[in-house]
Amino acid sequence: MLAGTVASLVAPTALGLGAAPAAAHGNGNHGKPDKDKGKPDKNKVRRLTMYAEALPGGLVGYGLEPGKATVPGPTLEMWEGETFEITLVNTTDKRLSLHAHGVSYSHDSDGSPLNASFNEPGQSRTYVWRTHAAYTTKGGQWMPGSAGYWHYHDHALGTDHGTEGVKVGMYGALIVRRKGDVLPDRQYTVAFNGMSINNQVAPNVPVFEANEGERVEFVAIGHGNAFHTFHLHAHRWANNRTGYLTGPNDPTQVIDTRDLNPGDSFGFQVIAGEKVGPGAWMVHCHVQSHSDMGMGGIFLVADKDGSVPEHAQAALHRYQGHAHP
Amino acid sequence: MLAGTVASLVAPTALGLGAAPAAAHGNGNHGKPDKDKGKPDKNKVRRLTMYAEALPGGLVGYGLEPGKATVPGPTLEMWEGETFEITLVNTTDKRLSLHAHGVSYSHDSDGSPLNASFNEPGQSRTYVWRTHAAYTTKGGQWMPGSAGYWHYHDHALGTDHGTEGVKVGMYGALIVRRKGDVLPDRQYTVAFNGMSINNQVAPNVPVFEANEGERVEFVAIGHGNAFHTFHLHAHRWANNRTGYLTGPNDPTQVIDTRDLNPGDSFGFQVIAGEKVGPGAWMVHCHVQSHSDMGMGGIFLVADKDGSVPEHAQAALHRYQGHAHP
Amino acid sequence: MLAGTVASLVAPTALGLGAAPAAAHGNGNHGKPDKDKGKPDKNKVRRLTMYAEALPGGLVGYGLEPGKATVPGPTLEMWEGETFEITLVNTTDKRLSLHAHGVSYSHDSDGSPLNASFNEPGQSRTYVWRTHAAYTTKGGQWMPGSAGYWHYHDHALGTDHGTEGVKVGMYGALIVRRKGDVLPDRQYTVAFNGMSINNQVAPNVPVFEANEGERVEFVAIGHGNAFHTFHLHAHRWANNRTGYLTGPNDPTQVIDTRDLNPGDSFGFQVIAGEKVGPGAWMVHCHVQSHSDMGMGGIFLVADKDGSVPEHAQAALHRYQGHAHP
Repeated sequence: MLAGTVASLVAPTALGLGAAPAAAHGNGNHGKPDKDKGKPDKNKVRRLTMYAEALPGGLVGYGLEPGKATVPGPTLEMWEGETFEITLVNTTDKRLSLHAHGVSYSHDSDGSPLNASFNEPGQSRTYVWRTHAAYTTKGGQWMPGSAGYWHYHDHALGTDHGTEGVKVGMYGALIVRRKGDVLPDRQYTVAFNGMSINNQVAPNVPVFEANEGERVEFVAIGHGNAFHTFHLHAHRWANNRTGYLTGPNDPTQVIDTRDLNPGDSFGFQVIAGEKVGPGAWMVHCHVQSHSDMGMGGIFLVADKDGSVPEHAQAALHRYQGHAHP
Repeated sequence: MLAGTVASLVAPTALGLGAAPAAAHGNGNHGKPDKDKGKPDKNKVRRLTMYAEALPGGLVGYGLEPGKATVPGPTLEMWEGETFEITLVNTTDKRLSLHAHGVSYSHDSDGSPLNASFNEPGQSRTYVWRTHAAYTTKGGQWMPGSAGYWHYHDHALGTDHGTEGVKVGMYGALIVRRKGDVLPDRQYTVAFNGMSINNQVAPNVPVFEANEGERVEFVAIGHGNAFHTFHLHAHRWANNRTGYLTGPNDPTQVIDTRDLNPGDSFGFQVIAGEKVGPGAWMVHCHVQSHSDMGMGGIFLVADKDGSVPEHAQAALHRYQGHAHP
Repeated sequence: MLAGTVASLVAPTALGLGAAPAAAHGNGNHGKPDKDKGKPDKNKVRRLTMYAEALPGGLVGYGLEPGKATVPGPTLEMWEGETFEITLVNTTDKRLSLHAHGVSYSHDSDGSPLNASFNEPGQSRTYVWRTHAAYTTKGGQWMPGSAGYWHYHDHALGTDHGTEGVKVGMYGALIVRRKGDVLPDRQYTVAFNGMSINNQVAPNVPVFEANEGERVEFVAIGHGNAFHTFHLHAHRWANNRTGYLTGPNDPTQVIDTRDLNPGDSFGFQVIAGEKVGPGAWMVHCHVQSHSDMGMGGIFLVADKDGSVPEHAQAALHRYQGHAHP
């Protein structure tokens, strides 16, 4: 538990983004992962119902229960070999859908109007996402497994590419894990959506909290019409599937800045405050005009016992006090 | 053979792109690779003549025979260790050239006006591209071989950077293969050129066809002034030289979306419809305004026997029927 | 020593960039690395003083001695396990700071106004950057070492993100090497800053010189508001930490073009002229309008003995003679 004050969400910004009430904010519960997302049956099938709902300020979000939609939407997790059967209930008066990256789906679960795979207003529709471990084809070709930091989003609201849907908040992380992957203590979705982070701009980007030493997982998602570069202060990760090097001979580039463009996603885990200590660590788009206009938030690393050092509280206050043009 | 109807090319779009007659369309013959591209002699030298020709609608393309220029230009393939001696015949009334990425060339084959390496109007000029397998320098440094999904393009028409040339269609794929690489059943160049795919916009982007189970190779090339993200539905690949993981311990990120910016190229192979079945699978730029404005096409995967399922025919008709603003 | 004439720097360009006098140009002394950058003491701590100084034309640079500020700033190098204690002396009348990518720093060395980590006008402040070799956490997690081609820049001049600082030249390369890494013969920082290379446009981008066969290291840095693609003619490198493949089974993509966006950095080494010979090799942003507007320079590879072949001298003269709109 953090002793300091966490930024509360306030009125809509000058950029016309909706004000998401605290309850409608994704990454709820201080990043603690919610594991109850459809327990798999003996055939490794997880069944879920998701609700597409209008939120204040013109937003639309996905939620796992009626009245609980969030932006970003809930982080969905599965292990290679499992299947998600997700029944999407469209409570809105517009068509919309559910489209996933990375997992395997048949044409009728594509989520695209092109394939007549979407929900009419008021309609429910089941989307089936399958995954598999790596395998060899009959022809001897080694095929990758489905594991990865993927994402899902609308593909039908507004245009045939879901342009209005992603703009107003219909997106979320989809993590497919491989046997042996380590689960995090905290988990945050950071979506660079248009000129916002999770449909908010500073100082309303919700704080990403952790205690020093915790394993924190970030899933970064890009959406919209602009290019961005994701940068995190004082931490770094390997530019591969997991963000971790495999050992001393792994030549993968280790980075703290990465392109994050529309439709793309990546993820990694850090040990919060490792070698740097607690602090209010900036996480922002490094395109200068974007950061200056508010595409920045804080990864607030408290002490191991959860108390926020004075210097970090001071930084948080500076972040909350300022307004962006 | 596909039983269904494939989209035919129509009159110029509102974006001012030229109408390329069906014969001038690159990726001809339903993606079947044309292996007759200069058989190597005993010194591993392949000799080719290419013709730079004006096409209807203001386009200019490369072709392997007079009157056969296409956009994209022909896919050139070679094995590490081989050399291409390409005589470019400039049949136009403007200067232009041939510049390659990835392969080795001396200053006089650079393709740049800076190095006086270009064709005057009506002139022929031979460009020599060398390749090599990986090797160790005298100093003990392990040097990479030339293998990769590279590309070639004009570097002299319009400006000293070939800006007009690439805009009007002077580009194509150049694949350098390594011993052991697997050859595909089908092969498609997908160039994100300006706001077009292969100088077309939906619904005129030629369909990329395959039968379920075929090995399909995509070479993606970026050109112009805008940033893009390449996204393919229902398939994925490893973000490395070949698109394939080397085995169970390869930590490379597997992706279905990748930045594709001016001058860049990458390639990969998929098994068409693997784990997802036949369908009209979207391939598009994921920048929302770009996809909405027509930067999208279809990877049409038919049944193993070549028949197009009803749902895919319906999707194709939807794609053909719609117009972009 | 190069026998030919190297382009001298001239009056400010139409883009309003300052004219950096020859002495104020980073990459001084023809790219020969300057090893005297703070010898480490027995605790592996290197102590340095850097001076932030105004330069002609509105630029501001970092330098290792008073009156010696350059744009780009000096390349700082360290080996994993070492620490830099850098005392920054702000000789200007504005606040500014020093922020590093990749290395480990505590909140008071963050370089951000958010963390009250900056220099007031006239103030000196010591920033501490720590590095470490790869290690295993108590929990058994393999953590990457700090090695990488990183960079440093202002984070306080103009805005809380240092927007004015990076615009006027406050950036430089920071290389953290791993035991076993090979040192180069020449070293160049190539910053794609706004629409400039190292705050210059053609024909004033300083020439990157080398003799055939020398090991040349490039550190590429992106800054500003635009997206870019870095392309080098006639040379290529592996897209990983060092730019070198580890051996015959390394599947990393070998590239000659790479995205270089604000906040990002990468580096690699080439053997100058390997397999291609001496020449005036173009290095430029491959976004067509950017290259046409002057985002291009020359990697001038002379013969092994340092004499510049006639064809390369001719190319250099073409480059110097032209003006960009």
